[in-house]
Amino acid sequence: MTQTVLLIQCPDKKGIVARVSDFIFRSECNILTSDQHTTDPEGGRFFMRLLFSLDEERVNRETLEKGWREVAEELQATWEIHYSTETPRMGILVSKQDHCLFDLLYRHRSGELRVTIPKVISNHEDCRELVERYDIPFHYVPVTPETKLRAEQGILDLVQDTDFLVLARYMRILSDGFLAAYKRDIINIHHSFLPSFKGADPYRQAYERGVKIIGATAHYVTPALDEGPIIEQMVERVYYKDTVEDLKRKGRNLEKLALANAIHAHLDHRIIRHAQRTIVFQ
Amino acid sequence: MTQTVLLIQCPDKKGIVARVSDFIFRSECNILTSDQHTTDPEGGRFFMRLLFSLDEERVNRETLEKGWREVAEELQATWEIHYSTETPRMGILVSKQDHCLFDLLYRHRSGELRVTIPKVISNHEDCRELVERYDIPFHYVPVTPETKLRAEQGILDLVQDTDFLVLARYMRILSDGFLAAYKRDIINIHHSFLPSFKGADPYRQAYERGVKIIGATAHYVTPALDEGPIIEQMVERVYYKDTVEDLKRKGRNLEKLALANAIHAHLDHRIIRHAQRTIVFQ
Amino acid sequence: MTQTVLLIQCPDKKGIVARVSDFIFRSECNILTSDQHTTDPEGGRFFMRLLFSLDEERVNRETLEKGWREVAEELQATWEIHYSTETPRMGILVSKQDHCLFDLLYRHRSGELRVTIPKVISNHEDCRELVERYDIPFHYVPVTPETKLRAEQGILDLVQDTDFLVLARYMRILSDGFLAAYKRDIINIHHSFLPSFKGADPYRQAYERGVKIIGATAHYVTPALDEGPIIEQMVERVYYKDTVEDLKRKGRNLEKLALANAIHAHLDHRIIRHAQRTIVFQ
Amino acid sequence: MTQTVLLIQCPDKKGIVARVSDFIFRSECNILTSDQHTTDPEGGRFFMRLLFSLDEERVNRETLEKGWREVAEELQATWEIHYSTETPRMGILVSKQDHCLFDLLYRHRSGELRVTIPKVISNHEDCRELVERYDIPFHYVPVTPETKLRAEQGILDLVQDTDFLVLARYMRILSDGFLAAYKRDIINIHHSFLPSFKGADPYRQAYERGVKIIGATAHYVTPALDEGPIIEQMVERVYYKDTVEDLKRKGRNLEKLALANAIHAHLDHRIIRHAQRTIVFQ
Repeated sequence: MTQTVLLIQCPDKKGIVARVSDFIFRSECNILTSDQHTTDPEGGRFFMRLLFSLDEERVNRETLEKGWREVAEELQATWEIHYSTETPRMGILVSKQDHCLFDLLYRHRSGELRVTIPKVISNHEDCRELVERYDIPFHYVPVTPETKLRAEQGILDLVQDTDFLVLARYMRILSDGFLAAYKRDIINIHHSFLPSFKGADPYRQAYERGVKIIGATAHYVTPALDEGPIIEQMVERVYYKDTVEDLKRKGRNLEKLALANAIHAHLDHRIIRHAQRTIVFQ
Repeated sequence: MTQTVLLIQCPDKKGIVARVSDFIFRSECNILTSDQHTTDPEGGRFFMRLLFSLDEERVNRETLEKGWREVAEELQATWEIHYSTETPRMGILVSKQDHCLFDLLYRHRSGELRVTIPKVISNHEDCRELVERYDIPFHYVPVTPETKLRAEQGILDLVQDTDFLVLARYMRILSDGFLAAYKRDIINIHHSFLPSFKGADPYRQAYERGVKIIGATAHYVTPALDEGPIIEQMVERVYYKDTVEDLKRKGRNLEKLALANAIHAHLDHRIIRHAQRTIVFQ
Repeated sequence: MTQTVLLIQCPDKKGIVARVSDFIFRSECNILTSDQHTTDPEGGRFFMRLLFSLDEERVNRETLEKGWREVAEELQATWEIHYSTETPRMGILVSKQDHCLFDLLYRHRSGELRVTIPKVISNHEDCRELVERYDIPFHYVPVTPETKLRAEQGILDLVQDTDFLVLARYMRILSDGFLAAYKRDIINIHHSFLPSFKGADPYRQAYERGVKIIGATAHYVTPALDEGPIIEQMVERVYYKDTVEDLKRKGRNLEKLALANAIHAHLDHRIIRHAQRTIVFQ
Repeated sequence: MTQTVLLIQCPDKKGIVARVSDFIFRSECNILTSDQHTTDPEGGRFFMRLLFSLDEERVNRETLEKGWREVAEELQATWEIHYSTETPRMGILVSKQDHCLFDLLYRHRSGELRVTIPKVISNHEDCRELVERYDIPFHYVPVTPETKLRAEQGILDLVQDTDFLVLARYMRILSDGFLAAYKRDIINIHHSFLPSFKGADPYRQAYERGVKIIGATAHYVTPALDEGPIIEQMVERVYYKDTVEDLKRKGRNLEKLALANAIHAHLDHRIIRHAQRTIVFQ
């Protein structure tokens, strides 16, 4: 049995749940979980995630998708379908700090993250040894203001064999041109509780503002810096004795967790993006 | 339009979601949210909460329920239906400590808790003034070991006009006989992070064990003391400087919140009980 | 025995702790707790809070303070001294929303907050009944753009008999002139996790930005709006199903707690302000 | 300058802080931070942690300790002194699950944990590769009920060159004889929020009890199983959809953090043990 996820969004109206679940039932699939959300039952936007088991010996994907396309058209829905037999390919970009990278490689190796990691790309050589120890190809792509365009083209060529990217403390801003060309999802971890402390050195900013709680934010990358749809946030209390270094140490724990949780939600296809927000089904 | 909640549990099998949502659709109702959960798609138990709007000018409750009964029978489901036009009657029992009582009366008065409170019953006179200030009848029912049976009978008579009870720091144990006679739901707030520190003086127990986090637990009352299905838990960090008194002060905040959240979930009909656990839909 | 708090800040150098604790010892007082903090042992700023018991039958306050002044001068320290025999007078300003006010009145009545509340002032009549029920004088001071100056003068006259003010969801900005004239501490509760979402309608801002955690911030008021030194912050997770109204409901719980914790820290004299930050000893 | 920590506990009485800080001052050391705690100023127990810088070119350790011994005797104090020039040797015991081990090895390699790790010992071969990749000796000491005594003797011989041990999910109970012979501190991570769910398979226990928050507890090992003084606890919310496997996955994050925080506190000499409790200065 193939576990299948269908993600839908469309204008809300009466009978959508019945229409969709009836379709799944008639396709001889069994709904395992179904989540919906509406911004407003009168004229709002409707979101749905269906997880169902598909018996491919009886129903093939083409038939299923062909049937679904008709329903989708009727509902004016945009949608995605994902089959559990696919293993997504996750590219990683990193700079010097390796705590998130390390955490992801461990979660990957231990079987917690069901992805392949075709490569890790960095603008520094620092993480090469760690990555190669895991038998993952490491690509060094230095970036300077003068060579940025060429470097990004190099990265773009390298990531063609990925389904999505993770910026695991990659400290260079990807240009709009890169985003437009890559097209797929990019998840970034920002080391502050956004929208507080955008930009550089957020732990120092937090220290100087004297906040009592710090945070980390995993979000999808959009052209507007640190403004993309938030997927996950984690926070922790800080004390007057905590120095900027202590904030960084506590923050690393938050970054690792927020990023790992966000990647889990992404891999489970539990996220629907809508405007500047995400709906993250649990 | 009457907002209507249907809570269902039944053996899991293929097509339940389709069957139920099709029924709702054919009954000319509009599903607003639908949550399901299964313990196991193969031979497990299936739980569902449907919130839908019912146009009583077109469909009356009797017709709806009659139609539903047939579906329910087919699914071997146990179920409840609740209409937003009903205002539940919440009885409160309290002893001397009034922080939870006070919090509930405020949330009631401010419109946050949509219930009526027909009466407050206590085994002490301490809270009379507070309760009467809100124009709610206060009943003093003293309990001693010798008079316990008669006292409980008195309470039972008083709570016949309630739909459920809240023990807002009521420090007497209700007998199995009382529970068997009352039959409806009773929500208790226990001042520890259950199952730790059952029984008396849990903050002192927590202090002496040297835990670093304390908690409060709201649960349904069952004959086994502090063993009923947990609805909500809240926790907070404690420090070496905290005395037992500090733990109590911090704990009062947790108790108020855990109890209020539990009552909200109960009033929204977001809870399904199954064995010793609750499923609390969000 | 009078419990006495001494709060000190001065340039850091060797021997301050020894010098101060030796003075307390020679003054025949017994140190109960002592907390220190330094931003940097080399040329940094040193902060200290001493709690000691003073036997006023043997040592009087004047002698103690006279002796202390000499030590303080030697250390170039600024300092405050507080005796447990004093009961601070807390003025409250409020607008229409009464949840924080209510919470403070309850904590006051139950003995948790050791203050007197000489009066509550509001720019609306809504809270009069609640306040007067507690036998606390209520003063209605309407504020319009045209009458703001006169209104603030009226408030200023009213709060002369207070030691500090609490803005318990007072939705008018106090002018620099008011702050300069009042001189004493003012604690505000802002309904966001500052520095995110300054200004108006922060829950709507939070909803629209799609954050996964919301917060509330208690801070001292300074002329720069929502920029004063933060005393306490509380946070809670939100979900995709939460509407702006749900955020407000969750937020009210956070506001009450953050404000109460901040007032506790203030009353215990556990706070030292330094530039835009607070040191809050536990 | 050598950063030096002095940990003291003694019967409380007047003048201890002055006596100790005066001694430090006369020894030409500079107090950087000082924390105290008393269970009761009248006849209670007094605890103190002093961090001071020692200029070993002017004062040598022997002189310092000789002088201190006199003060300690006077105060009837038990105490420890630690110099920042010492690098503690941390032995690790592990079974099959490697998430905590991995986390510790990373924190060690990144410089966050200032220890040496002379060896890792396991009753399984599973972690050998991981450990040897870090160039740390790995010792396989199988344990069966029949060979337990001899195995423990083997472990005891191996850990003679350690200053303390960490049980990073070591699933065998160390006998009282082992504890009596090793004498030094042993830190264990238990995968529940103690005192809830002692013993085996706590995540399953938590699932079956239906708690809404799970936890992990780092504690010192004592002969009474899972009863040793708690150092750190971490918690996280769980939902009805979470299976036992989800609880384990969330729990692994908590275990790593609780254990790392506990080791940090231990290495900073911020912990004083007293009866079944710990005082953990921040």
